[in-house]
Amino acid sequence: MKEKDIIFLFEEIVKSASIPPFLLEGIGDDAAVFTINEKDCLLVTSDLMVEDVHFVKDWMPPFALGYKSLAISLSDIAAMGGSPEMFILSIGLPPDLGDDYIFQFKEGLKSIALKYNVALIGGDTVSSEKFVINTTIIGRAKRQRLLLRSQARIGDVVLVSGYLGDAAAGLELLKKRIKNTDWEGLIKAHLLPEPEVLLAQTLATSGLVHAAIDISDGIATDLAWICRQSQVGARVYQEKLPISSACKEAAAFLQMDPILWALSGGEDYKLLFTAPPEAVPELNKLAWEKCGKDIFVIGEIVEGNRVCLITPQEEIDITGKGYEHFG
Amino acid sequence: MKEKDIIFLFEEIVKSASIPPFLLEGIGDDAAVFTINEKDCLLVTSDLMVEDVHFVKDWMPPFALGYKSLAISLSDIAAMGGSPEMFILSIGLPPDLGDDYIFQFKEGLKSIALKYNVALIGGDTVSSEKFVINTTIIGRAKRQRLLLRSQARIGDVVLVSGYLGDAAAGLELLKKRIKNTDWEGLIKAHLLPEPEVLLAQTLATSGLVHAAIDISDGIATDLAWICRQSQVGARVYQEKLPISSACKEAAAFLQMDPILWALSGGEDYKLLFTAPPEAVPELNKLAWEKCGKDIFVIGEIVEGNRVCLITPQEEIDITGKGYEHFG
Repeated sequence: MKEKDIIFLFEEIVKSASIPPFLLEGIGDDAAVFTINEKDCLLVTSDLMVEDVHFVKDWMPPFALGYKSLAISLSDIAAMGGSPEMFILSIGLPPDLGDDYIFQFKEGLKSIALKYNVALIGGDTVSSEKFVINTTIIGRAKRQRLLLRSQARIGDVVLVSGYLGDAAAGLELLKKRIKNTDWEGLIKAHLLPEPEVLLAQTLATSGLVHAAIDISDGIATDLAWICRQSQVGARVYQEKLPISSACKEAAAFLQMDPILWALSGGEDYKLLFTAPPEAVPELNKLAWEKCGKDIFVIGEIVEGNRVCLITPQEEIDITGKGYEHFG
Repeated sequence: MKEKDIIFLFEEIVKSASIPPFLLEGIGDDAAVFTINEKDCLLVTSDLMVEDVHFVKDWMPPFALGYKSLAISLSDIAAMGGSPEMFILSIGLPPDLGDDYIFQFKEGLKSIALKYNVALIGGDTVSSEKFVINTTIIGRAKRQRLLLRSQARIGDVVLVSGYLGDAAAGLELLKKRIKNTDWEGLIKAHLLPEPEVLLAQTLATSGLVHAAIDISDGIATDLAWICRQSQVGARVYQEKLPISSACKEAAAFLQMDPILWALSGGEDYKLLFTAPPEAVPELNKLAWEKCGKDIFVIGEIVEGNRVCLITPQEEIDITGKGYEHFG
C-alpha cells in the first residue's frame, strides 16, 4: 500500500465519525484547525521522524536533529498563518545513543524552542531500536486570517518565499562528504531549516494571500496539494524558479540537475502561496520591509487539475511527481 | 541515561522558556492543560508505541494494536477528568507490513474512535523499519473539575477502579501461548484495555476526588507519581489489593506472584485516585449507579514521600519500583 492509499484508508475513520462542530479543517491541510471562540482557532500538527528514513546519524549532527525536528512542525503552523505556542515531544531512544548525543539533541531543540518562543508542555520517552522523534505543535490563528491550501483561484500567481533546491543540494553534499566553504549555506539549508513563521504571519495579516502550503516534498508535490484542495491547475515556468548560484555550482560539480532539486528535492521549508497578480507589488514590499525577504513569482493558477512545468522546449506534467520520476 | 534523567534533561527546555500564561499544567501530569476561556481548558497528551518494545506482532493482533494505541491516550485524558474530543495519528510503517495488517489496525482504531466519539483530525504517515505509532489526543475539561496528580492530601484514602494485574497476567499467557477460556478476560485486559472515561468524568463531576492518575506502569510507580507531585507518602495494604480469581489461578498455573503483577505489572489502565475517607460511600454509590463499576480502597495517604506496601509480615518500600525490583 502506498502512503496515499494508507491516508485514504484512515480517512474512513474521519468519515465514519461525526465531525465535531468546532473543527474547521481536518486532514488535508498543513495542520488541523478548530475553533475555541468566535475569533480564534487553534492549529495542531504532528511530524514523525525515523532514523535511517528521515535522517542518518552519520551526516546529521544531534544538535541539528533537535533543531530540525521542531522546525518542520513550526513550518506547518507557519503555512497556516498561525503563531506557534507549545509543543509535545515523543521520543524513542536507542539504549546505545549516548548521553552526549541526547544532550546535543536537547540543545538543538532548546535553541529553536527559545527562538520561536514555543513551550514544551509534555511528551513521552520510550526505548526504541532506532531513534524516533514525534513533535506535535499547537498554534493559534485568527479565523479570518487563516491560510488554507484550498483557496487558490484561477488567475492567481504562484509565489515562493526563497531559493528552491538548496536543502536537496546540501543533502547530496553531506552524503558524499564534500566540504567546501562556498557551499556551507546549502548544508545549513538541509540541517537547520528556518521555518517562515514571521513571513507567513505577515502575509496572513495582509489579507492578500489566497492559498498557502509549506514546501516539504518539493513544489511538484506541494503545488499539487494546493491544486487538489482548490480544484484548480497550475503552470510553473522553469526559467522563473529561484535557484541560488551555490546550488547551481554544487549541481555542476556533482553532475546533477538543480531544476530537479528545486522541483522535487524537498525539505526547503519555504512558503509556497498564491495571490492575485495585482497584489504582488504590495506583497514584495511587505516581505522585504517587515521580514527582509525576497519572494518570487514562479507561475500561475489555471483551470484543470494538473501541475505543468513550462520549459523553453516543452510542457511537462509534473503533478505530484517525486524526484525519480522525471528528468 | 535513564528515562527519568532524560525527562529531567528536557525539563531544562521547559524551565528556560517563558511559561505561557494560559498553561495550567505542563510536564508532570497525565496530560498538559491550557485554558481557552474562563471556564474551560484543553488537555493534550501523546503516547508513543514501538514494535518489539511495547508490542510484539506475534502476540498482538493488528485490530488490538489499533484499539490499544488510542486506548492508552484516552486513559490519560480520562485521568484528568476530561472528555476526549479529537486525535492525531503518526505512524511509521514497515514496507512489508501487508495491506491486511494495516486494514485490521485501522479497524481497531476506528472501533475505539467511534466508541468514545473522538475525531481523527490529522497525522503523519512515514516508512520505518519497525512499526511505530504515536497518538496525540486533545480533550476538554472544566477548570474547576480537573483531576490532578498534585492534589492528594494527608488522610485521604487511596482507591482503584478495578482489578489489578489482569493485563500483566494476560501478557504472560500470550507470551507463553497458553489458551484457556477461563482466562480470556486476562488476555482481553492486555489486548483491549478499556479507558475509564465515563467513571473519571463521574468522579470529577462529584467534586469529591482529590488526586488521580491512570495506572500505566503499576501502582508502585503511579502512586509514587501522585506522592511526588503532592509531596506526600502512601501506604498500600497487600490484603486489600483487588486481584481477580482468574488472575490468581493463572498466577498459580504459571508459578508467578499475582501481587507483583498487581503492583508493577502495569498496563491495567484503571484509575488510581485519592479522596477523603468520608467521601467513600458516595463515591461507591456514584461508581456503581452511574457506571456499573466497583471501586476499591487499597491504602491511605500519609506524611513523607515514600510508597510503602504493608504485608502481614512487614512494611516494604516500593516507591517507583518496577517489576524486577521486589518480591
